[in-house]
Amino acid sequence: MNAAALTLAAETTDDPIYQTDFIVEMLRQTRALDSYGQWDGKTPQQILDSYVLTKERKREIPVIGDPDDQIISRVKSFHNAIAVLIEKECSLMAVPFVQLTHEGFGRALIVVGKLVVMDRTLRDVHRFGFESLSKMKTEADKYLGVALEIIGKYPEVAGL
Amino acid sequence: MNAAALTLAAETTDDPIYQTDFIVEMLRQTRALDSYGQWDGKTPQQILDSYVLTKERKREIPVIGDPDDQIISRVKSFHNAIAVLIEKECSLMAVPFVQLTHEGFGRALIVVGKLVVMDRTLRDVHRFGFESLSKMKTEADKYLGVALEIIGKYPEVAGL
Repeated sequence: MNAAALTLAAETTDDPIYQTDFIVEMLRQTRALDSYGQWDGKTPQQILDSYVLTKERKREIPVIGDPDDQIISRVKSFHNAIAVLIEKECSLMAVPFVQLTHEGFGRALIVVGKLVVMDRTLRDVHRFGFESLSKMKTEADKYLGVALEIIGKYPEVAGL
Repeated sequence: MNAAALTLAAETTDDPIYQTDFIVEMLRQTRALDSYGQWDGKTPQQILDSYVLTKERKREIPVIGDPDDQIISRVKSFHNAIAVLIEKECSLMAVPFVQLTHEGFGRALIVVGKLVVMDRTLRDVHRFGFESLSKMKTEADKYLGVALEIIGKYPEVAGL
């Protein structure tokens, strides 16, 4: 990854997005799943840059074969972070599931009690990424909002 | 597998258990996940015998490392078959998820609409099996019963 590419993640460390719960959690989750130590000693920008895929970057990624471990870790970190935010908001345990079949297809679920609060089909996992950190946060916030809405509607099932 | 071991699966083909919905579905699911063609041309008894683990057989299985593809296929087939039976009973789509972490631990879920109708922790997946076909069916029936009960209690969530 070159220096020019690295500037994509976010403008500066002063960007207030780095203080948001979601981005803080994304960093924590990404480090937690870093089995190979690839993020040791790296800055938040460098780590989160791996989630930023502009159209140009996407075009460079081949979608042949099964996604590698690093891609899978990114997909898991994103959904883990959403699950943590759900937990913080509703004080109930939220459990994420990511099931990838071959060729980059799959499904991600988040379960609270007996309630499925997020359920999405994953496609093109090889190219899992977002145009910017801010777009990533917007998408996470959207899933969080939908999850809290369904929990509010069926609190009994979420509490099972 | 020797001839003596094969007699474990069920006494004879005439055993009425082979006509039950669950066992018929188990055969179908096991064949569906047979990527290597290991069950081609095999009898129902030979195929289902792979699910029968007496205490002696269990003792012979090492629990080191990750479970192999054949074990994972058995775990999936079992939960797929339960999901199909749930669908038949409630006429709603039931989606099974099996998520295995390393070393043979994991979790199996079945989801109907936004309702989690089965949720179990898997341990010792290397030794996934049942004392007899009849015990396997009893366990599946138990999960089916619990699933239908919760669907009956929260039909709105199951219908989402």
